[in-house]
Amino acid sequence: MDFWRASSLEDQIDVAAGRQEADLVLKGGHVFNVFLKTWEDADIAISGSKIVGIGNYTGKHILDVTGLYLTPGLMDAHVHFESSMLSPREMVKVLLLNGVTGAIADPHEITNVLGEKGFRFMLEETEGIPFSAYLMVPSCVPATDMDTSGARITPENMERLRNLSPRVLGLAEMMNFPGILSKLQGEMDKLKLFYKQKMDGHAPGISGKDLNAYVVSGITTEHECVTPAEALEKIKRGMYVFLREGSAAHNLVDLLPVLDKADNRRLCLCTDDRHADDLIEQGSINYLIDIGMSLGYEAEDLIPMATLNVAECYGLQQVGALAPGYQADIVAFEGLRPFQPIHVVKGGALVVKNRRLLWKSKPVLKMPGQSMNMPAVTKEDLRIPAKPGKRIRVIGISQTQLLTTKLHMEPAIRNGEAVSDTERDILKMAVFERHHNTGNVGLGFVYGFGLKRGAIATTVGHDSHNLSVVGTNDEDMVVAVNRLREIGGGLIIVSEGEVRATVPLAIAGLMSDRDAVVVNSQISQLEFWVKELGIPEEFSTFMILAFLSLPVIPELRLTDRGLVDVVRFEHVDLWCD
Amino acid sequence: MDFWRASSLEDQIDVAAGRQEADLVLKGGHVFNVFLKTWEDADIAISGSKIVGIGNYTGKHILDVTGLYLTPGLMDAHVHFESSMLSPREMVKVLLLNGVTGAIADPHEITNVLGEKGFRFMLEETEGIPFSAYLMVPSCVPATDMDTSGARITPENMERLRNLSPRVLGLAEMMNFPGILSKLQGEMDKLKLFYKQKMDGHAPGISGKDLNAYVVSGITTEHECVTPAEALEKIKRGMYVFLREGSAAHNLVDLLPVLDKADNRRLCLCTDDRHADDLIEQGSINYLIDIGMSLGYEAEDLIPMATLNVAECYGLQQVGALAPGYQADIVAFEGLRPFQPIHVVKGGALVVKNRRLLWKSKPVLKMPGQSMNMPAVTKEDLRIPAKPGKRIRVIGISQTQLLTTKLHMEPAIRNGEAVSDTERDILKMAVFERHHNTGNVGLGFVYGFGLKRGAIATTVGHDSHNLSVVGTNDEDMVVAVNRLREIGGGLIIVSEGEVRATVPLAIAGLMSDRDAVVVNSQISQLEFWVKELGIPEEFSTFMILAFLSLPVIPELRLTDRGLVDVVRFEHVDLWCD
Repeated sequence: MDFWRASSLEDQIDVAAGRQEADLVLKGGHVFNVFLKTWEDADIAISGSKIVGIGNYTGKHILDVTGLYLTPGLMDAHVHFESSMLSPREMVKVLLLNGVTGAIADPHEITNVLGEKGFRFMLEETEGIPFSAYLMVPSCVPATDMDTSGARITPENMERLRNLSPRVLGLAEMMNFPGILSKLQGEMDKLKLFYKQKMDGHAPGISGKDLNAYVVSGITTEHECVTPAEALEKIKRGMYVFLREGSAAHNLVDLLPVLDKADNRRLCLCTDDRHADDLIEQGSINYLIDIGMSLGYEAEDLIPMATLNVAECYGLQQVGALAPGYQADIVAFEGLRPFQPIHVVKGGALVVKNRRLLWKSKPVLKMPGQSMNMPAVTKEDLRIPAKPGKRIRVIGISQTQLLTTKLHMEPAIRNGEAVSDTERDILKMAVFERHHNTGNVGLGFVYGFGLKRGAIATTVGHDSHNLSVVGTNDEDMVVAVNRLREIGGGLIIVSEGEVRATVPLAIAGLMSDRDAVVVNSQISQLEFWVKELGIPEEFSTFMILAFLSLPVIPELRLTDRGLVDVVRFEHVDLWCD
Repeated sequence: MDFWRASSLEDQIDVAAGRQEADLVLKGGHVFNVFLKTWEDADIAISGSKIVGIGNYTGKHILDVTGLYLTPGLMDAHVHFESSMLSPREMVKVLLLNGVTGAIADPHEITNVLGEKGFRFMLEETEGIPFSAYLMVPSCVPATDMDTSGARITPENMERLRNLSPRVLGLAEMMNFPGILSKLQGEMDKLKLFYKQKMDGHAPGISGKDLNAYVVSGITTEHECVTPAEALEKIKRGMYVFLREGSAAHNLVDLLPVLDKADNRRLCLCTDDRHADDLIEQGSINYLIDIGMSLGYEAEDLIPMATLNVAECYGLQQVGALAPGYQADIVAFEGLRPFQPIHVVKGGALVVKNRRLLWKSKPVLKMPGQSMNMPAVTKEDLRIPAKPGKRIRVIGISQTQLLTTKLHMEPAIRNGEAVSDTERDILKMAVFERHHNTGNVGLGFVYGFGLKRGAIATTVGHDSHNLSVVGTNDEDMVVAVNRLREIGGGLIIVSEGEVRATVPLAIAGLMSDRDAVVVNSQISQLEFWVKELGIPEEFSTFMILAFLSLPVIPELRLTDRGLVDVVRFEHVDLWCD
């Protein structure tokens, strides 16, 4: 928001100097200073979209914040909006209620499905809204050639995407660190295209000389640290380290001790992936700060990690502090615990008052178009003829981590076919290619899924987001797949031939076009049926399912092209000795 | 220096990964980490102009730095090169020997004399040298309309100057803070021109709402703080504060205690104005760090203030740290005290080895052209006919500060003229306009100058740099002025009709075209004669003289247009009641 339009320089000087009334004054609060990490009792004067003064001010409009704690708007240093399953605008509503006024988003999920059109959708839906959504250009679409993605983003596409808007800041997480270390031509081209901008990293465990090589390539952020020692090494080598707490990845508690060893100037906070229910029930970056405080860390050390440091990391001018000339993104809290906002000002406009969102918007301005391009399926597509004397490779699921194990087991055979076996918890799984009508289907089995009846299907399946289904019987699996195909994608549970619960995700098969409250209740309904069909309470069913097709996490995965041995990085047959 | 030319990305990755030899390895040193403020025993591997690795490396060339302390090249956050009286290239040589590899320079002295041509001279002389000279566009040329400057820089000029090079970073110190607070059109135009870039400040003592207004105008650095409280208030409002220690202004000792109250992330170090002898005998930014350590502050807190913080303040990418991808600007010290470098690497090239400068250059590539445009003078130009019954206004000099007092005194009369009186230490002073052949000369008297014989003249006279002369008799004054006119400007002492010592400053009458050693010895010779002619040892004669014409520091000054009462901001007559 260019301040020249919102209020003139002359007016801002007059208001700051106390010669003219401010447009809005937040009176009587405890104002947090990110530079000194102290609190100051003072008013905040706003002219147009800018803070112009801290001190004693009068204004045309007054917001009484007596006794409240005021911080700059919180910023999420790294997030995939699509993981919420909410449309961008619905996600923003939930974020604003949690005091998050800006985020650096990597839209690689929707870009994997819809290509450039998906990226543009995310940009357009976040234009002209009371939120600072910055985008990074996805760097790894597709992630591998082991499955069929919706799109391919080449350096030519990337050049076009990064020039679409000043809100596009650089290159999104470069996951192919082996490719960088071995100087693959395609990766070198991407680095050379973006070397003058910010490039995000994703290289868990990389250290020593490999770390030097990764950083020298221009990649300077990391959100995948697991230990404080790893975080410290990466900070030493010039990286900004983002302490992450998402729905799947819980690293914050392990990493916060890095604050005991280093001052926080190169540390930020991020959520990466957070589902709608976690966002609504726990919160976003404010929740991370709460966790930190619960462990004894100071709000004064944590708040800069969600404000000034993010701005400095990404070269964002005039955001991230409560000081003259800074964008008026301000959050008011009744107390530090729980760290839950009562009012939020964005760009000088009050958007949350007394915990109620004042900003109205439809969930979606303009849908990006159909993303389900696959034929209807029949039981024939799921048939696995038996191979006597052979065993089957089975994906062994863990409920505590995303790694799977490569198992060899005896199949249950019925009528000459390998079928699901609920007693041994070996269930059939299928992945249907859904972008290009190829008719591809990968067939396999999973162990440890826990389902006793029915079938579960999803179009959220990292990274290519084909349609995955796991079931106890083929009839329910067919119903599940075909219904998802009809509604444009989503999550679904079927049993006894009936659809029991759905979360339709009509935007690219990843995000809902409904409001957050509706989505949250659809998720609840889904979770009810997951338990009803026998899966233990503590299992993270849809999340596990979402990663079963990702052929980069060891050991065994299933894609639309079949089983993948990730360690040897090659397709393998379902049948083995 | 674009790294693509110096070494390819692929080579940098290979060297960092340890697969290929580095171009240069600094082996066995204690490497300072600006992010964690710790020391690490490791090698630094360089490829092309970049640091590519910290760790255990081999290289085509090895520099043994066993036991030495390695820091990033030091950077001066705010400096006027011209104050050294050395040409830019000679200044750079002295800076490199002191471990300073970069600086943010405001060339307003030469711009006041030669206009755009002067600015271009500074830019061109610092092109392609082993030093990172960044320039700011002078904002206040001329400073006032109370004298005749050599040039005027309008917003149109400024637009042209800032587009000359990526080394031009923004607007130089905006000294007219009253003008900003009262929104003078001319100042608003400058702010609007530069609001997307960095704007430096100069507003000593400004606080409260006035400070808010000054900062909201976009000005975000300050080097004129006097007290820690002032520094803290400015940091709170979002400014970077530069702790200054120059030849004239000694603020460092007073300001360092701000480190007891605030972490250092928004603090930098600067010299502002340092003369050649102080640079050669004491040093530059390294000397400031030494002072800090002598007062008990840690090198680990001071070094970032001269490296990473300066880079962050000015948005300079990949400078200011010893980490992969950063420019290979590295200084090696034998010990922390004294903080005097033994080796310096700039952009991957060794430029100082064992305290000897390896970089050769003439002092000047191309002179900017004559700046002395005034007629020769005679005693008639200095004649002050007596006015019986009237007294004279006299400028009362202080040796401890730049302020002067407005005195009314009885003149010494001889042959119907007011003349110098060495017994009462009331000496005649004249300021000759020297840029535009106007023939202007301002005549007056100073009290407390201390000269017993002869005359002293200079073409260094802030801000317009006309030719000032103070003397005990008109004959010596005429000799001094005419010789300076012949040699193109400088500093001169004359007695008994003979030129006793000169420091010729042929570049704009401000800087010498000779090498630093010669200039230093010319200064010594000048200082000898200053004492010889009766001025006490502790007087700062040329510095006092350099400020006697600056019509912004109270109370009474003399310009080419006559006496100026600074408090009432108007010209006044020499004669009064």
